[in-house]
Amino acid sequence: MDLVAIGTIAFDTVETPTGKAEKQLGGTAVYLCLAASYFCKVGIVAATGKDFRQEYLDLLREKGIDLDGLQELEGDTFHWGAKYHKDLNVRDTLFTHLNVLLDFTADLPATYKEAPFFFLGNIDPALQLHVLDQAKNPVFIGMDTMNYWINSSEYRPNLMKVLQKTQGIFVNDEEARDLSGEYNLVKAAAEIRKMGPQHVVIKKGEHGAILFSEGSVFYAPAFPLEMVNDPTGAGDSFAGGFMGYLTTQNKINNAILRKAMIYGSTLASYTVEEYSVNRVAALGTSSISERYHAFYELMNFDK
Amino acid sequence: MDLVAIGTIAFDTVETPTGKAEKQLGGTAVYLCLAASYFCKVGIVAATGKDFRQEYLDLLREKGIDLDGLQELEGDTFHWGAKYHKDLNVRDTLFTHLNVLLDFTADLPATYKEAPFFFLGNIDPALQLHVLDQAKNPVFIGMDTMNYWINSSEYRPNLMKVLQKTQGIFVNDEEARDLSGEYNLVKAAAEIRKMGPQHVVIKKGEHGAILFSEGSVFYAPAFPLEMVNDPTGAGDSFAGGFMGYLTTQNKINNAILRKAMIYGSTLASYTVEEYSVNRVAALGTSSISERYHAFYELMNFDK
Repeated sequence: MDLVAIGTIAFDTVETPTGKAEKQLGGTAVYLCLAASYFCKVGIVAATGKDFRQEYLDLLREKGIDLDGLQELEGDTFHWGAKYHKDLNVRDTLFTHLNVLLDFTADLPATYKEAPFFFLGNIDPALQLHVLDQAKNPVFIGMDTMNYWINSSEYRPNLMKVLQKTQGIFVNDEEARDLSGEYNLVKAAAEIRKMGPQHVVIKKGEHGAILFSEGSVFYAPAFPLEMVNDPTGAGDSFAGGFMGYLTTQNKINNAILRKAMIYGSTLASYTVEEYSVNRVAALGTSSISERYHAFYELMNFDK
Repeated sequence: MDLVAIGTIAFDTVETPTGKAEKQLGGTAVYLCLAASYFCKVGIVAATGKDFRQEYLDLLREKGIDLDGLQELEGDTFHWGAKYHKDLNVRDTLFTHLNVLLDFTADLPATYKEAPFFFLGNIDPALQLHVLDQAKNPVFIGMDTMNYWINSSEYRPNLMKVLQKTQGIFVNDEEARDLSGEYNLVKAAAEIRKMGPQHVVIKKGEHGAILFSEGSVFYAPAFPLEMVNDPTGAGDSFAGGFMGYLTTQNKINNAILRKAMIYGSTLASYTVEEYSVNRVAALGTSSISERYHAFYELMNFDK
């Protein structure tokens, strides 16, 4: 096992300016694993309900994703609904049926505990801590979180403990501002780095993502696409591509982290082209290197 | 004369989250010329009123800007007031006192008519056309415009004529959408290219700028700054740096246009650091190459 991804499996009901997808496969752990599956052996840690569909399990298995960490619990699968504005960076959450998520324990199978790479998707920081307690020899732990945990006096103390033990955090601009108390993103990233993670990735949706490390800042734009059908999962696909690429390297330095940013952007750019996981689960062998090079063409100029 | 910049000279009264500047030097032509002055001999075509200040004329002259195209008219100088939101990409215009702008004729001195490079700042398309009629051997004409002209049945026909005669257009995302009728910026740029300019630069404020040319797309991020005091003039400084750099080259191709994008971004990034023209008018000799290389570090990754 190269990478263990902890998060949600969901049914997503999503409406965008171009159409609607009802109760399709989604969830942070799903996008993370699908994106990472092109690079490495990844195991999923998440909970499904009794209503989860066999076809989705088959899909994940076909992509080589290890399902030993999947817990089937009594009740229904987590179901999330949202509607995107014409400005796809803005969405309204219509409903959040947590369902089995309330009983999710994030226990790792024995084989997962030895993994070198972990990604803690956006879940209760107490569960993220529980995963960290089980990891025996982690090399690089990435994490995501959200305002719900950041701005709560109940959850924030645990979140701060998680931060102290992680190497990389992936948050959007609003989360970075709430977490740090700084509006300016350069200052926000500097404050967050003091909380633990050496590497802070601030995701800006259609405006790309910025990686702040010691003495290095790297800007990865979002790929300019003629058609974006569904932005859901872009951030998790980004993290999955990023982490997946890291597992293929035998060291971690700025040059490698920059390439990881572009692989992350590559996977995110494919995800948003179609609804649900339709595109990110169906990439051909050359698709990833093709878009990686397209990013190079997009950003390359003479010194 | 390498470059002629047509536009406004203004008094700007600007309030931002960090402070306020009252009746300070501003205007599209001013930012354009100051930014371009680090690269080439630039002449300004704009109108001032009787209340314009000698110190500002001295400043422009000190920067080597040719003032023969300046018209001093009866009445007061154009005065513009705006307040920026915490999100500096959003501002409310508080007042627009056109004053002498109503009598501005955009007549070029004889020495300006032979210039190879022109930039038509955001003014009445009829005046932009009048400038084009006077240009004898233009090599590259850049232009800006705004929704006021784009969305008016009175002004739009002239605007379309201007577009047909220009090589490069610099518009923000909203203007690109209004001009093209396309929300998606990739599609919008393709539509605008059909209207005339081979090169379309879409400016996205703090999210950077994208250059669309035949078979080439280039993304220049905005420089991540710890402090932005006043975004006013960023777009014009961008265009001034872009055009100024172009004048130093004896050909125009994609590699050179990409460098021009970074020089434009460099000048824009300095402009926003301080109120009014305080920073862009006071750059040291090495400042520009230093930030150009900082952009390289910001965007560079292994192929």
